[in-house]
Amino acid sequence: MKMIYEGKAKRLYETEVEDELLMEFKDDATAGNGAKHALFEGKGTLNKQLSMLIYGMLEEGGIPTHHIREVDETHVIVRRVKIIPLEVVVRNVVAGSLSKRLGIEEGVALSEPIIETFYKVDELNDPMITDAHVLKVLKLCSKGDLAVIKEMAFKVNSLLGAAFAKAGIRLIDFKMEFGKTADGDIILADEISPDCCRLWDAQSGEKLDKDRFRRDLGDLTEGYRQVLERLQHAL
Amino acid sequence: MKMIYEGKAKRLYETEVEDELLMEFKDDATAGNGAKHALFEGKGTLNKQLSMLIYGMLEEGGIPTHHIREVDETHVIVRRVKIIPLEVVVRNVVAGSLSKRLGIEEGVALSEPIIETFYKVDELNDPMITDAHVLKVLKLCSKGDLAVIKEMAFKVNSLLGAAFAKAGIRLIDFKMEFGKTADGDIILADEISPDCCRLWDAQSGEKLDKDRFRRDLGDLTEGYRQVLERLQHAL
Repeated sequence: MKMIYEGKAKRLYETEVEDELLMEFKDDATAGNGAKHALFEGKGTLNKQLSMLIYGMLEEGGIPTHHIREVDETHVIVRRVKIIPLEVVVRNVVAGSLSKRLGIEEGVALSEPIIETFYKVDELNDPMITDAHVLKVLKLCSKGDLAVIKEMAFKVNSLLGAAFAKAGIRLIDFKMEFGKTADGDIILADEISPDCCRLWDAQSGEKLDKDRFRRDLGDLTEGYRQVLERLQHAL
Repeated sequence: MKMIYEGKAKRLYETEVEDELLMEFKDDATAGNGAKHALFEGKGTLNKQLSMLIYGMLEEGGIPTHHIREVDETHVIVRRVKIIPLEVVVRNVVAGSLSKRLGIEEGVALSEPIIETFYKVDELNDPMITDAHVLKVLKLCSKGDLAVIKEMAFKVNSLLGAAFAKAGIRLIDFKMEFGKTADGDIILADEISPDCCRLWDAQSGEKLDKDRFRRDLGDLTEGYRQVLERLQHAL
């Protein structure tokens, strides 16, 4: 099969069906735009399971996603889309780059969720961009598309936040990517896993996500395994 | 007189009138948030003259500003306002940080002007922020205030762009600051001068603004003097 994309944590291959791609979850973890890199045995499997669980829950909640069906431990079949080169981040609590950029302590809850968008270009280090950049400078999508993306992003945040709350986990922030189908519909693409979420234990505040790797806070896969088990139990 | 503010290029003093402040234009030029610094004899006088000329033209065009009257070569009386800690930038052509951030060549004209906002905090290096940060995270002003600021910023851009065009100068981008009066009105504060505009000769493309200092492109005050003389002649 022809590989058509390799990212830091996933590969995409063409299949015999024009409209379907095979997505592979890798064991690689990277941080700082690839500056830090390591392999964690079993991470791909965990993320694939988590992504299946989360995308299934989101589909039930009315969010169209690219997931079609699972193949094996680390592979799923997804719908082919044209990815809009935007990292769409929803934040409920101040953490990470927002904390550093605005000088606000990590852990401060926002009065309402906000969306940040980043231009997905490795060579530029994924700079934060505004609606004006998206629509008028880079022209990444139409005004209507951007409104749909934001509405979906907030809805995903509600569904996901509620699911994690049932599992005793706080959804601090997370990143999504959206794609456009051949029909012009915008659907949720990529993955949602602890690689691209900040997830804190609701009681202890323990970090269960990729910050364990970024900040050397303990066994990465142990955090991911906890998230999977608790979410499976809660849903 | 009591000095109540000292910035990189200006000082503000209280006067005997509660609602009026004395603004002094300094000869200092800085770049890179103060990393580069020099004195240019006569710059304060030039900027004061330019700011008077520009704010007078804007007032005639219906933009309320803090300028009241001139005092001498480097001093004007301005209205006391509470500064909203936002650097409001309008861009017509890609240059400077926008070029670097998004990997677009300097000089590319935008299909329509855009506004960028920066959080005015030296210690944070004035980070770019979005409407969501202004309204929901930092709560720097109300949604209505932000709409007024943006409307005024675009109008200032139109008036200023037309005035400079008459003088054979292209307005590439510029920075403004707004303040709130005791009555709650939003007015244009600070200054507009080649310290905070990018101004290129319409024919040759020669830079006539602070980039001469930032990038060591030639005599700073000579550029400012040209801008003043050409604008005086054109208006």
